[in-house]
Amino acid sequence: MSQVHVFTVEMTCEGCSNAVKRVLDKLGDQVTDVDINLNEKSVHVTSSLSSDEILEKLKKTGKEVKYIKSSDV
Amino acid sequence: MSQVHVFTVEMTCEGCSNAVKRVLDKLGDQVTDVDINLNEKSVHVTSSLSSDEILEKLKKTGKEVKYIKSSDV
Repeated sequence: MSQVHVFTVEMTCEGCSNAVKRVLDKLGDQVTDVDINLNEKSVHVTSSLSSDEILEKLKKTGKEVKYIKSSDV
Repeated sequence: MSQVHVFTVEMTCEGCSNAVKRVLDKLGDQVTDVDINLNEKSVHVTSSLSSDEILEKLKKTGKEVKYIKSSDV
């Protein structure tokens, strides 16, 4: 079952948001949609992975990451 | 034996360079010095780790990384 997981990621330029996107894209089929809003520093990830698993990946970018919430699709 | 490993990392703002710094800082005692030049997109890492090990860590940031060279300290 997929959920939409929402995170706040400290992104300040398109280089930042592209890096986040690239990390999530590497998760392949386990992630079905990624929606990044640079101004709001928000990242929505539709995935069969748990929020913790995605949080771990996002932290590897070296950026400050905060988990906000998950909702059923 | 420590070496200085040089990489080019696609960094476009201080958020980018801080993220790179944070990832390298997490390597603890294995890294003795980090010198990042945002304008030149260069990252100098003084470390007992191999260039490949550092390259792997840098790639996890989601940024484009290119290995340049290593020199003895």
